[in-house]
Amino acid sequence: MPNDHTVTAYNEELALLDKRIAQMGGLTEHNLGRAFDALMNRDPSLADQVIKADKEIDTLQIQIEEQVIQMIARRQPMADDLRHIMAALKIAGDLERIGDLGKNIAKRSLAIANEQCPRKLMFGLQHMVESALHQLKDVLDAYGGRSTDLALTVWRDDEQIDEMYNSVFRELLTYMMEDPRNIGFCTHLLFGAKNLERIGDHTTNIAEIVYFLVKGEEIAADRPKRDTTSTTLFTPPAS
Amino acid sequence: MPNDHTVTAYNEELALLDKRIAQMGGLTEHNLGRAFDALMNRDPSLADQVIKADKEIDTLQIQIEEQVIQMIARRQPMADDLRHIMAALKIAGDLERIGDLGKNIAKRSLAIANEQCPRKLMFGLQHMVESALHQLKDVLDAYGGRSTDLALTVWRDDEQIDEMYNSVFRELLTYMMEDPRNIGFCTHLLFGAKNLERIGDHTTNIAEIVYFLVKGEEIAADRPKRDTTSTTLFTPPAS
Repeated sequence: MPNDHTVTAYNEELALLDKRIAQMGGLTEHNLGRAFDALMNRDPSLADQVIKADKEIDTLQIQIEEQVIQMIARRQPMADDLRHIMAALKIAGDLERIGDLGKNIAKRSLAIANEQCPRKLMFGLQHMVESALHQLKDVLDAYGGRSTDLALTVWRDDEQIDEMYNSVFRELLTYMMEDPRNIGFCTHLLFGAKNLERIGDHTTNIAEIVYFLVKGEEIAADRPKRDTTSTTLFTPPAS
Repeated sequence: MPNDHTVTAYNEELALLDKRIAQMGGLTEHNLGRAFDALMNRDPSLADQVIKADKEIDTLQIQIEEQVIQMIARRQPMADDLRHIMAALKIAGDLERIGDLGKNIAKRSLAIANEQCPRKLMFGLQHMVESALHQLKDVLDAYGGRSTDLALTVWRDDEQIDEMYNSVFRELLTYMMEDPRNIGFCTHLLFGAKNLERIGDHTTNIAEIVYFLVKGEEIAADRPKRDTTSTTLFTPPAS
């Protein structure tokens, strides 16, 4: 039987793992917000900071991975603890991808730094990023508090981001069709919007991981998915 | 000490893990090829098959994950075996994403089923998919044969896919600028090309995992990256 000392050290390692996830989540959230600010305000110096800061997120993921492998090797975790450790590993993977997608938005802000983008187009994107940040914060809270209710709310609300994406997608294509000179920067905004939609999907993944961690079973429903842009051909609205 | 019987059973489990990776890789490769055929030939019924077959890839990933967790819990692997098991887990994650990106190409083929796309545009995409499939096959062989040489070749050659993507990106935007009626279907081809570029990145991830599995250290060089489309604003060529 493990003695009290071993148990305490083990619990400290599990707590460190969660601390690192919280830290990685906080950094990811912060960096995504700044990436969007760089895009909104055409701020190349902020974009550079975001691109550099993404390395910290990557480093945290590597630390989490190394800790997980060490814990498995040394502690030989079973049942709940193993599920906890594997959940942390997977969440770190999703956070790393969210970080990359945020970094890509920062890069695109560099490309369109000298362009004038209509306020209306940017509003749609702003709503998307606000929802994405809100969802990310909630899913990290759901993990921290092991709340399946909050995880389910995040999981269900992803379709709102999908609907916003459909609408931004249509606005951008309409704008491109109105004047070919808009195509260059609108393509960057299109990929930026797609990144935000993907960030929503990774957040939904995390919600599913939290649910499974607490309940030991998958969410018993089909995933809500309202992004219809892949399967429909956009034609310009009749004027 | 484990007896011979235990060791044999353990080796059989490791072999099963690799068999499942090979199977998942084969399916992923096959489905990506068919997704592109559906796009090239505007074949909605093939696209439907691809979308359905992606579920098999997802199921294999879940089986691999479950096997990994069971092996860790029951066998308490150390050192090389633990590295082997964790490599399989990560490769399965990358293959699942490649499957999703292929499925998305099939969905886009449904959206543009009734469109006439110029042969030249499709040629660029075809070269991309041929390279992506070739790289995927090689990296699976590199894993099967634990070949760092082959893994390094795959890792270096990804920049060729990036360069093709840059060129396809420019062709598509030029075509969109020439006639706004091309914007709808070109947007689908643009996302399709981006998916192929991402598939190249996931293949490169797998090459890094294989290298680390065999050598126990990361590849000692910066990752080649030639996709410049995120950071540049495309303007139409002077006519």
